[in-house]
Amino acid sequence: MGARVIVSLLFLFLIFRSNVDAANKRIRNRRPCKQLVFFFHDILYNGNNAKNATSAIIGAPAWANKTILAGQSHFGDLVVFDDPVTLDNNLHSKPVGRAQGFYIYDKKDIFTAWLGFSFVFSSTHHKGSLNFAGADPLMNKTRDISVIGGTGDFFMARGVATLMTDSFEGDVYFRLRVDIKLYECW
Amino acid sequence: MGARVIVSLLFLFLIFRSNVDAANKRIRNRRPCKQLVFFFHDILYNGNNAKNATSAIIGAPAWANKTILAGQSHFGDLVVFDDPVTLDNNLHSKPVGRAQGFYIYDKKDIFTAWLGFSFVFSSTHHKGSLNFAGADPLMNKTRDISVIGGTGDFFMARGVATLMTDSFEGDVYFRLRVDIKLYECW
Amino acid sequence: MGARVIVSLLFLFLIFRSNVDAANKRIRNRRPCKQLVFFFHDILYNGNNAKNATSAIIGAPAWANKTILAGQSHFGDLVVFDDPVTLDNNLHSKPVGRAQGFYIYDKKDIFTAWLGFSFVFSSTHHKGSLNFAGADPLMNKTRDISVIGGTGDFFMARGVATLMTDSFEGDVYFRLRVDIKLYECW
Repeated sequence: MGARVIVSLLFLFLIFRSNVDAANKRIRNRRPCKQLVFFFHDILYNGNNAKNATSAIIGAPAWANKTILAGQSHFGDLVVFDDPVTLDNNLHSKPVGRAQGFYIYDKKDIFTAWLGFSFVFSSTHHKGSLNFAGADPLMNKTRDISVIGGTGDFFMARGVATLMTDSFEGDVYFRLRVDIKLYECW
Repeated sequence: MGARVIVSLLFLFLIFRSNVDAANKRIRNRRPCKQLVFFFHDILYNGNNAKNATSAIIGAPAWANKTILAGQSHFGDLVVFDDPVTLDNNLHSKPVGRAQGFYIYDKKDIFTAWLGFSFVFSSTHHKGSLNFAGADPLMNKTRDISVIGGTGDFFMARGVATLMTDSFEGDVYFRLRVDIKLYECW
Repeated sequence: MGARVIVSLLFLFLIFRSNVDAANKRIRNRRPCKQLVFFFHDILYNGNNAKNATSAIIGAPAWANKTILAGQSHFGDLVVFDDPVTLDNNLHSKPVGRAQGFYIYDKKDIFTAWLGFSFVFSSTHHKGSLNFAGADPLMNKTRDISVIGGTGDFFMARGVATLMTDSFEGDVYFRLRVDIKLYECW
């Protein structure tokens, strides 16, 4: 019986250790604990569309202005946005929240941007917010950014969001599909 | 005895599984591991207060300038700040650190902003930093943003910070109360 | 035997509890699960170096312009960058990725900045991205910022990055050494 106890304690010790290690190392489950799909719609101010515009250039390099996107892949343009978030790809669907934040075009020879923004939900479906940050090499079919936190229904969330350009019309309108996979849910 | 061993192993397996799942799914403890309250004080540059100002407009939309906050809920104004952080609501209390970063007013029809900033501590109480990001719909009595990381005393911290406007004087001064609840402490 | 079963169950319960607590509280392992060192190189546009420049001022306070860094510790200057990332300190080494994002000088009486950026890797060594945010009191020999997320090879990463100014030449060139320690790897 003594031997059995020792073996048991050894087992327990091993389980315990594996847990401690698991906490920051490994055996993390790559199955998402929550999956969500949204669309958001960005209409950039161009001098003539103040009524409909949902975003505007607020920073630009020395060689550009704030009404027309800069040359060289818009390098240096900082855009702030408050875009409707919808459940499908229709701009006129009832929004379930707003995408609020900014993007900065950050490269001269190809279109790419850096994004910091939140989804702020205010619907019967979701309350709370999800916060995002990351690089958006927007000529790629899909781009992954980080879900860096959340509040309300998305308390303490972390995960990855995959961006896809679902549609665009010149420099004025684009629509992003956002596939959110949360791997930490509380 | 063979049966008992099998039952034991089954138990162990179940515990192990539940741990792996717990790592990214559930059974997370919603009791904070650390709670902190701070105040920070923002004095916006308005053309005449260079000596006292702790923040300044550095980006603005095409239709505005950088000395006066823009119309339409300040939409498009980007403000950088270096504000004193105090333990109570007195602007003249000895600061325990600085709040450094930016906010962007991001909506035309109501006051709301997007925040990216850090608390940088340098006191006998705290050393290190806490990093924050999130949406601040500032007309709401309380707003939750994310604690996205930390260093020093706040190594690897994550949590939620609740912002409350504790006082404001026109467009020049506001004071925020920040209730920080960390749920990941290392 | 009844007693033994009860003792066993108690043990199991205690292990289970400790796991739940460990999930967000403690027993976290402060040994990094991954360590990486990179250098990145920033050449600021100054009006005459458009061909070589990798960054540009795109926001500035009312009293400054966007070709020359502002007085008072550059307070209020917002710089966007797309800098080469190398494995050693040689600007001309083959880049393994790009550092893309922005910094804002945020203090009048000393040089300090707030950083939001990503390392976007595209080499045989690494694919994916790491996202960073935090305060950079750049006169300090070392400064810690947060790794707030990652994608691809760095899926769901979290950690701390230590910045060191490895070299600088006036206002035009600086090189940062970045020691990355990840404490959450998936």
